[in-house]
Amino acid sequence: MNYRNVLSILGIALKAEGVLLLLPLLISICCGEDCIHSFVITALLTLFLGFIFSLKRNREDNLTAKDGFIICGLSWLILSLVGALPFYLSGYIPSYIDAVFETVSGFTTTGASILTDVEALPKGLLFWRSFTHWIGGMGVLVFILAILPLSQSRTMHLMKAEVPGPKVGKLVSKARFTAQILYAIYVVMTFIQMAMLLFGGMPLFDAVVTSFATAGTGGFAITNTSIAAYDSAYIDIVITIFMILFGINFNLYFFIVLGDIKSVIKNRELHVFLCIFVISTLLITFDISSIYDSFGQSLRHSAFQVSTIMSTTGFATADYNLWPEFSKTILVILMFIGSCAGSTAGGIKVSRIMILIKSAIREIKKLIMPRAIISVKIEDKTVDNDTISGAQSYLVLYFIIFSISTLIISIDQFDLITNFTAITACLNNIGPGLGVVGPTGNFSQFSDISKIVLIFDMLAGRLEIFPILMLFNPYAWKK
Amino acid sequence: MNYRNVLSILGIALKAEGVLLLLPLLISICCGEDCIHSFVITALLTLFLGFIFSLKRNREDNLTAKDGFIICGLSWLILSLVGALPFYLSGYIPSYIDAVFETVSGFTTTGASILTDVEALPKGLLFWRSFTHWIGGMGVLVFILAILPLSQSRTMHLMKAEVPGPKVGKLVSKARFTAQILYAIYVVMTFIQMAMLLFGGMPLFDAVVTSFATAGTGGFAITNTSIAAYDSAYIDIVITIFMILFGINFNLYFFIVLGDIKSVIKNRELHVFLCIFVISTLLITFDISSIYDSFGQSLRHSAFQVSTIMSTTGFATADYNLWPEFSKTILVILMFIGSCAGSTAGGIKVSRIMILIKSAIREIKKLIMPRAIISVKIEDKTVDNDTISGAQSYLVLYFIIFSISTLIISIDQFDLITNFTAITACLNNIGPGLGVVGPTGNFSQFSDISKIVLIFDMLAGRLEIFPILMLFNPYAWKK
Repeated sequence: MNYRNVLSILGIALKAEGVLLLLPLLISICCGEDCIHSFVITALLTLFLGFIFSLKRNREDNLTAKDGFIICGLSWLILSLVGALPFYLSGYIPSYIDAVFETVSGFTTTGASILTDVEALPKGLLFWRSFTHWIGGMGVLVFILAILPLSQSRTMHLMKAEVPGPKVGKLVSKARFTAQILYAIYVVMTFIQMAMLLFGGMPLFDAVVTSFATAGTGGFAITNTSIAAYDSAYIDIVITIFMILFGINFNLYFFIVLGDIKSVIKNRELHVFLCIFVISTLLITFDISSIYDSFGQSLRHSAFQVSTIMSTTGFATADYNLWPEFSKTILVILMFIGSCAGSTAGGIKVSRIMILIKSAIREIKKLIMPRAIISVKIEDKTVDNDTISGAQSYLVLYFIIFSISTLIISIDQFDLITNFTAITACLNNIGPGLGVVGPTGNFSQFSDISKIVLIFDMLAGRLEIFPILMLFNPYAWKK
Repeated sequence: MNYRNVLSILGIALKAEGVLLLLPLLISICCGEDCIHSFVITALLTLFLGFIFSLKRNREDNLTAKDGFIICGLSWLILSLVGALPFYLSGYIPSYIDAVFETVSGFTTTGASILTDVEALPKGLLFWRSFTHWIGGMGVLVFILAILPLSQSRTMHLMKAEVPGPKVGKLVSKARFTAQILYAIYVVMTFIQMAMLLFGGMPLFDAVVTSFATAGTGGFAITNTSIAAYDSAYIDIVITIFMILFGINFNLYFFIVLGDIKSVIKNRELHVFLCIFVISTLLITFDISSIYDSFGQSLRHSAFQVSTIMSTTGFATADYNLWPEFSKTILVILMFIGSCAGSTAGGIKVSRIMILIKSAIREIKKLIMPRAIISVKIEDKTVDNDTISGAQSYLVLYFIIFSISTLIISIDQFDLITNFTAITACLNNIGPGLGVVGPTGNFSQFSDISKIVLIFDMLAGRLEIFPILMLFNPYAWKK
């Protein structure tokens, strides 16, 4: 590993966080809140650490794939540890582990919370909490790539490590421009949502943080009852649409900008994603029709819940803990599927599942025609074997982490459904699960050990396992 | 597909079942029971069908791998449909679907039951029920291979389709001798267990059927409270030991017979299997120590439950529904792991999991050293890529079947734990799950649709998915 290079990029990431912390600080100052000092201390500390880390400039630019993963894993960990300080220093989250949990949940766009009364937080902290969603959604390293002139040889490995999905496609030849395009789309879409929420009568501050949480597919709300608090069909519908939009591969928006509608229309992952959305919504609408007054009501709640789970956002307008088992089972299955690769959402990803299923079908075909050479194709393009075995190994590691995590948190003696869905919700970056951690519950009751496990799972989910496991691999740390 | 060949082997399988049905018939006659007619009719029908099927003798002997899978899938289905008739015709199981459920559960060595009062059954039916475990454990086709002189080109494909595990090793050059050796070991071990149970004061009939159910790792008991009914530490210990023994790859017993102890000692799958057994037993022993009077009592119940779940037998001595969540979670994880390849047990299999984990670790290594060629090794032998991709595809299909099954049975409105563990218990051929289908419950309350799904899962689990999926593949049916 090239320590200088790694440290210098970590330094840049810390400096970026230090600057971003000035935004919530500004809000706290404007509102005259009691958490100003916590932002000042954290920002100064972050900037100081950033300068120390990047003191020794790197002479050679080379970054290996391994370094990319290590930088990605480390930067997310460090940014979270530092980003938790405002919550802790202000005293609003008295336990540091709780504060880290909340921050990791923010950056990883999970949206799982340990707060029982979120409305008690000052606006500065609420803003920072939702802002972490927005930063983490598109990615910290992608942000750095977009704003800093790093050499080409360094950039792709960083991008590959951070952008979710089985395969990362560059939009243009330079990774830097790709990052800039992605962020430009991200910013524009976030602003459109803000405007539409304001139009629906949502207060400005609420519109801003809700848009952050939607764009990052995070799910932190600033009311105790989440989106249900606004009690508006218009707001529900706007958020439903945007959750789905942010669950789609951002490359497709770039194609739209370029006028290449054909590529969007024939995108197989999008077809499958939308099919799953429509079918699940309809099935649940009929299943819950006896609970709500009208078909429209059922459809509204069903569509909202399906999109919040598929996009792994985790907003709530209804307590699906009380829905029939069939609907609940659909939602649990959707938790694992997640959204499209290259979006801000979590889960296993539709395209990875498509690759896995197609390679399994190939296996059956091979049994019928043992001598035939059969390739796995998506949109007429052959998926290379590295991508397939990457996806398959991902699935194996996913379930190993899943099992071990469930086992450890079961020591807390919650019921199996709570434990199972708590891990599901964290590893897929959703937020709420079922049982104790359902839409009306939270994660505060877990022990510190369980919270550390859940923190690990949220990071593993957002970074798609490999960068986080790499941190535990002694070989990866060798010079 | 070679229809004549397929039909002729199906015919042989049916004739074999017809002959085997004479055993329970004999018992019914001896005991003067009211179910004699049901055995007579079924045996005659089975033999008649068998003769019809094998009327047209096959001229050429060739069987492709595809034919092997089709024969395997079809024969298990037909033998179950016919094998269910004694329960149905005698009136003791009034619903034919229930009867098929019970029979499939028997043949696949699952041990899940729809009977609420098993003690009400006459001895002939009880014998047949447990005997299906014993037949299904080692396999129907393996049985046919052992007794009939089929040509070499036909045999290996049949064996590959029926014997569980990621890779089937021939013990000797001829598949027929391999099948004979396997059955010889199976018979001897079953008799040893019978003798030991008789020594412990178990009645003869009980000892015979309990040994059948243990040998096949099935789990049907002839008392309503399963093995707890005997209330004997000695019997518990004997059964615990034999469940573990029948969960070990039978090839290892052949090595012992040959005096090749070295191969047994250095078998990695055995090490991992026994390690999991010991660690799980100890963890649960400590976890449940507050429930039982002494450490010995906890150890006895823990070891029994761990071995009954790992070996996918499903006997009960305690209601683990009432154990702490940590213990329950361990048991649920063990349900997925199962036992060794080449044993009579179900589950994903220890060696398959080893291959999956090692190939995932290879993927991480590849990220560190992109240009290195890294092979997956078990016991210094390289695992070929076909075996790896077979195991990976197995896992994918496994979870797809798992998800769809859970979704369908959730229509019955049982809680998620019941549905989740019912599928777990059937797909891994265990028997009891948690909740409604826990050790003291049964599967009678499910709807017919759910029962059909569970029947499919039991067959998919026992035959390791591919032969059953092959039946639904139109390409496989082409001449």
